[in-house]
This record gives sequence, structure tokens and C-alpha cells, in this order.
Amino acid sequence: MLVACSGGTDSLALAAATAFEAPKLGLRAGAVIVDHGLQADSAHIAETAAEQCRTLGLDPVQVRAVTVGTEGGPEGAARTARYDALRDAADELSADVVLLAHTRDDQAETVLLGLGRGSGARSLAGMAPAVGLLRRPLLDVPRATTAAACIASGLRPWHDPHNDDPQYTRVRVRHEVLPILEEALGPGVVEALARTAGLLRADADALDQLAADVAETALSRAEGEVRGDLGVLAGEPTAVRTRVLRQAALEAGCRATDLTAGHVAAVDALVTDWRGQRWIDLPQGVRAVRKGGFIALGPDVTG
Amino acid sequence: MLVACSGGTDSLALAAATAFEAPKLGLRAGAVIVDHGLQADSAHIAETAAEQCRTLGLDPVQVRAVTVGTEGGPEGAARTARYDALRDAADELSADVVLLAHTRDDQAETVLLGLGRGSGARSLAGMAPAVGLLRRPLLDVPRATTAAACIASGLRPWHDPHNDDPQYTRVRVRHEVLPILEEALGPGVVEALARTAGLLRADADALDQLAADVAETALSRAEGEVRGDLGVLAGEPTAVRTRVLRQAALEAGCRATDLTAGHVAAVDALVTDWRGQRWIDLPQGVRAVRKGGFIALGPDVTG
Repeated sequence: MLVACSGGTDSLALAAATAFEAPKLGLRAGAVIVDHGLQADSAHIAETAAEQCRTLGLDPVQVRAVTVGTEGGPEGAARTARYDALRDAADELSADVVLLAHTRDDQAETVLLGLGRGSGARSLAGMAPAVGLLRRPLLDVPRATTAAACIASGLRPWHDPHNDDPQYTRVRVRHEVLPILEEALGPGVVEALARTAGLLRADADALDQLAADVAETALSRAEGEVRGDLGVLAGEPTAVRTRVLRQAALEAGCRATDLTAGHVAAVDALVTDWRGQRWIDLPQGVRAVRKGGFIALGPDVTG
Repeated sequence: MLVACSGGTDSLALAAATAFEAPKLGLRAGAVIVDHGLQADSAHIAETAAEQCRTLGLDPVQVRAVTVGTEGGPEGAARTARYDALRDAADELSADVVLLAHTRDDQAETVLLGLGRGSGARSLAGMAPAVGLLRRPLLDVPRATTAAACIASGLRPWHDPHNDDPQYTRVRVRHEVLPILEEALGPGVVEALARTAGLLRADADALDQLAADVAETALSRAEGEVRGDLGVLAGEPTAVRTRVLRQAALEAGCRATDLTAGHVAAVDALVTDWRGQRWIDLPQGVRAVRKGGFIALGPDVTG
């Protein structure tokens, strides 16, 4: 296993805990430090973190320099570059898993960031405890615990100035929104948000799987269009039916990032609130129209 | 139909809109004003609201004085008394529905209040557009629109000082949390929260129904205990299985308000993460234990 370590409080605590536990379980644990090259002294910071990981007994320890692009904004682009580097490192070093140090506080912040999107359970489900090679063992652990662990172990974490820069939405959520929310709703908000994430993740998983099963029967492709069978769709609950229709729109050519809940609701009205609507305009020039026994979605359905 | 009117901006706008629309649809519309008796001049305020409703052409218009108890805190007790009075009025006046003036902003506040509970989709699903006799036709309408409607119609709404009293959690959410959240996440947060409520309500409805169907097969009662069949439960997704187990715990005697997601997760571990746990202590002295092919829940399962 590899610990993804920035040298910050959370990942340094995770590196120390992993170095302590892995040998007892007969597991080999190394670390990978991603140098994003975004700060003048980033190479030095990365080397310091690597040195700390080696001192903790992790082996191998690798620094990987990446080039951060621009797509998805500064935070998104840095994340993409980082995760690519972690997967490359795992591949090169034949690691089975990569441990990430996201804490319960990070999870709560992620849920609040998802609130702004308003796209349902999946956007509030936060980060997954396990996805692909990645594992997040600290997702139920408060940030205060990783800070205490560093102090108790005499570790000297690096403090990333980005963590205080209010140009980042996550920083504003951490330093402005969460304290006000705790003050208004009482203590335990962070825990409640993290618990919400877990419950909504389970809900979304179950409903996505159900919708995928229903789509097998409900959806078909013919004459360059995706067709949703009205008889099958009408018998499903709203939560399943709208997920199937969303999948149909994606298959018909809509991009996920452009397709809103409002679009899907309008298509759903063709099924459940039929009043002779002509067609629904969807992103990427896709249209949805009701024809006889089905809903047809595609670029030419009204042609 | 009856409009529940406090004389405030939202309900006065709803009263005016209802008085305007109902006759065109051939419907008879009246109003009911609940006098909570919580302020010295409450009878006068109620009579002013009633007079405005009469002027708008609503008929009959009834003021109902209630006594607010203490159970559930000041907001909860007032709500209970109010809804009881509205149902009584509907009953007495043979109304089919009672219209409530909750706006999209109220819905967003309700979602944020639910975040603090952390009990999953249902606690974030906000207020229902329709439940029993009650209907909330303004749930997609911004508060700014009701204010503009009052101005445009020359209506003079009463301003409830409670709406600015920070001793109420909802007031703190409205005046402190929401503005900070808008500032951090950008505009459209209120809309996103209201949309989230609708999507999660649909999810919760679908999963609750699925769980009720599974419970028919999975749960049985024998020897004073509720039993959950391991074979059936193990085949269900987490979101459904935990809902069935929650229902089992309620049937075994746990009170809904005392039973947490943590309790249910511990019972679920008897199904999915069996390591020979002895028993799980649940509220009201109920215990859950794994026995042979089932999970048994009840006060005496370990006796």
C-alpha cells in the first residue's frame, strides 16, 4: 500500500499510523508525495515530506512532480493531476491500494459544496470510502484527532497556505460556513454532515442499481434514437423513473455536466403529466418527444 | 379550500392569489387565521388579517384561538397547535384542502435545519407539497415574489417580530447561515436546496416503499420478538436493508426519536459484518441478537 502524503497534518498522521500498523499485519507500506509545482518552494516541501515518511519507516517513498492544467478550475485541475500521479505511482510500484487522508471534516465540507449543486443524493454523498485503488480510512476521524496525533508523535506537519486562501470555495466553506452552521444548529454538525454523506451514498447506490436494472427492460435503440417504454416507465417510482430517463438522455448524446434535474423533470412530464407537449429541448441539440408507446430521445426525433 | 393566513407577506399574497383564481375555477375559497395568543396584541393582528381576507373576497373567514403547549420546544409546540386548528377548521367548514404559504426560501431553510439531524434523505426532504389535507402551492416560489405581489396589489402585510428573533434556530438559519452560504457557494443556493429537497423526497419515498415490500417477506413475529430473515436481508442493498432493520427495531419497541442511524448500523453489522458480536443494545431496553438464520429484536432476546 501507498500513503498519499503532502506533509500536512492529516496525511502525516496517516503516514505515521500506516507505518506503525502495516508491519503488524504483514503488509508493505510506502508513500508517494505529489509535487504540484504550484508554489516556489514546492520541491523542497515535497522532499521534506518524503524525508519524514522515510524516517517513519515507509518504503519505498517517491516524489512525483506533475504539471497542473487549467480544466475544471484551480482545485479541480490540481486534483486531476494528483490522482493521475497516484495511480501512476501505484501502477509503477505494484501497490494494491493508495491511502488518502481525508477526514470527517473534509467529508462535511464536501457535502456542503455539493449542496450548491442541488443535483440530489449523489452530489451530497461526499467522498467514497473506497473507489478503485483509493481508500480513505480517516473518513470517520475528526481533523482534531490527526492534529493531536501529530503532536503526540512529535511530527511537524507542513501548513499549506492554500488552506487559508479564501479564493478557494472549500476554504470559505471551512472557515466561514461551517462555524456559522455550528453556531446556528448546535455542535455535531460536522458529524451529522458526514453521516448524511454515508446514508445518501447508500441510497444513491441502491437507486442507481435499480435504475440500471429497469433500463435494461425500459430502454431500446432504434433509428438513431433512444426509446423509453412508457408502460415500463409509468410503473416505476419517480426516483427510479427519472434516473432511467437521465440515462436515456446521456445515451442520446447529452453531456452529464450540461444535463440538469430540470431537463430530466421536463422529460419526465412527458410520461407522468402528458398534456400534448410538442418536444423538450435538451443539451447538445438532443430532443425528447412522446410518440405512441414510448419517449424518443435523440438529435432527430422531431425530424 | 381554505387559505391559512397569518397576515404576513407570504400568506397574504397566497390569500390574494387564491381569491383571484378560485372563482375562475368554480372553487369556493375561505381563510382561517390562527391566533396563537403568544403576543399581547395577537387578537388584534388576527382580526386585521381576517379583515384583509374578507376584503379580498374570501368567504368564510374564521379566526381560531389556540393554546400553545410546551412539547417540542416553542416552534414545535406552536406548529402542532396551528396544524390542529387548521384541521379542525377544515373539518368544521367541510374544506377539501388547506393551502399553506411556505415558499422556496422556507423550503431551503428546512433543508438546512435537517442537515443538523444527519438522519439521511428523509431529514433533508423538506416539506411535502401535499400531505393529508395540506397543500403548499408556493414551494417553488421565491419569497421575493410574494413580497412583490403584496406591493403590486397594495396589500399591507403584518411583520411578525418573531421572524427576526435570533432565539429561533430558523431565524438564525435565515439571517446568518443562508447569506454566508450564498457568499461561499455563489447565488442559486436557495434554489439548489429546494431542488435537493424534492429529489431526496422522491428517493426516500421509493426506498421506503421498497423496504416496506421487503419487510413483508423478511420480517416475522414469534415468541415476543421481531425476526429478520438473514437470507432475505443479505440479498438487499444497504439502503433497503437498513430501512427494514429500522422498521424491525421500531416494531420491537424502540421509539423513532431515540433510534439513531448508529443503532441501525450496529444491527446491520450483525448481518453484513458478523464476527460473533454478543448483542446490540437499542433504546427502550430493546436488544438485537443474531440467532441461527435470523436477527432477533426485542426486550428478551438475550434472556
